[in-house]
Amino acid sequence: MQKNKNCNVVLLGTGNVAWHLGHAMLKSQISLIQVYGRNKTQLTALANEWHVPFTDNLNCLSPEADIYLFALKDGAYQEICSVFPFRNACMAHTSGNVDNSVFQSLTRHGGVIYPFQTFTKGFPLAFHEVPLCIDTNDPECEEKLLFLAGKLSRIFCKISSIQRKQLHLSGVFACNFTNALYTLAQKIAEEKELDFNLLRPLIAETARKVQTHFPEEMQTGPAIRNDTGIINNHIELLKDPQLKELYHILTECIIKNAKNKS
Amino acid sequence: MQKNKNCNVVLLGTGNVAWHLGHAMLKSQISLIQVYGRNKTQLTALANEWHVPFTDNLNCLSPEADIYLFALKDGAYQEICSVFPFRNACMAHTSGNVDNSVFQSLTRHGGVIYPFQTFTKGFPLAFHEVPLCIDTNDPECEEKLLFLAGKLSRIFCKISSIQRKQLHLSGVFACNFTNALYTLAQKIAEEKELDFNLLRPLIAETARKVQTHFPEEMQTGPAIRNDTGIINNHIELLKDPQLKELYHILTECIIKNAKNKS
Repeated sequence: MQKNKNCNVVLLGTGNVAWHLGHAMLKSQISLIQVYGRNKTQLTALANEWHVPFTDNLNCLSPEADIYLFALKDGAYQEICSVFPFRNACMAHTSGNVDNSVFQSLTRHGGVIYPFQTFTKGFPLAFHEVPLCIDTNDPECEEKLLFLAGKLSRIFCKISSIQRKQLHLSGVFACNFTNALYTLAQKIAEEKELDFNLLRPLIAETARKVQTHFPEEMQTGPAIRNDTGIINNHIELLKDPQLKELYHILTECIIKNAKNKS
Repeated sequence: MQKNKNCNVVLLGTGNVAWHLGHAMLKSQISLIQVYGRNKTQLTALANEWHVPFTDNLNCLSPEADIYLFALKDGAYQEICSVFPFRNACMAHTSGNVDNSVFQSLTRHGGVIYPFQTFTKGFPLAFHEVPLCIDTNDPECEEKLLFLAGKLSRIFCKISSIQRKQLHLSGVFACNFTNALYTLAQKIAEEKELDFNLLRPLIAETARKVQTHFPEEMQTGPAIRNDTGIINNHIELLKDPQLKELYHILTECIIKNAKNKS
């Protein structure tokens, strides 16, 4: 793919990831030539918002795409591959977990462009700050995906399939479980009628600190000070046995990590 | 305390919290008239940085303070109260856990001004965004602490001792445990030679989302989708039994919370 050439993309999917990818493409020099989706309501809404041709019929897919970019639910790939109308096109999915060989019955040019971020539809973010991780064994697909990635974000890299799955796992800890802790913190606070607004600056600062430092340098709280008095008070305050257990495990993780460091 | 009057503060302590409080006072219209500390090196460094009189001898404390503001380790209060030279002064500590009655042998004007934030020395933050929570049973102390709080931050409120201890506990979940998850995520990523920089935008976005929304609305990931295939893959990828257990508990918390909501 020549450096100055445009890149035509057909986007398949209408969910969170598709919403963000589509927006990012419209803002970049990438031509989003068509959107495909099975959910007619979502498809029409997206296509109208973007002013882009759309279809819910795979047989009406444009044959002109440089890349067919899939942002579907992980379970949907087998079915769609069995009826996809083109052979040997460049096809890429966006999942952290689906195998990069999922398109191999259809094309030699399959791969993955994995945007490593948490996406919520209607919640815009700076897409040029989203790391795009490319996982493919095909040089032609790799070239196209690197071109696409470079237009969409300033952070992109090649990774192996093993790395991609591990990255997905680490993201569950950094994002999904972190958000679960925010929810628990909110519930603990609200039990005594404390507003979640009191917690927001603390949450923001905790995430801000690790943008320039490593989290183990930034650890604060009773566990890192090994303050057993406060730790025991806290475990007593918690009523739910599952929360007590969670408090125990995370406290032990902090203590163990501090020991390994020293 | 008259609205236009200045407020003279003697600060006792040279640790993280003292460092941030001192800086905030120097930036505000509060007169930091003296710093006391037992650690001579830290005390001299702070006093030189701030150009403020200092002493490591309690008998040399200025008697002119409107507020004696203590930012000591939780365990240090008993000892310092037994030798504090003044009676019936306004005294306040800054701890999430120490009782608000800790000064009662010395004064009727004791209380707490609890800055609800994670502090690291040398790591500046926007102090006017730090919630300052005031806990006292004395009206004179309350008036002075509200005046001080209003000069230092735009977010301040009165809370009870029970609320303060619960808020401290919720902060452990929102901050200390969250940071522990960042550390675990980093270790999981680095096991496959993935750079922590890949995780930083995800961490920042997760915290950003809950600044305007509630975390339960923002939950993403395999647990909220009840995607048992990915959940089982992830638990298999984790080798450490403690991490497996942590994965289980947090996944269950997310599923349980989603059920309670629906």
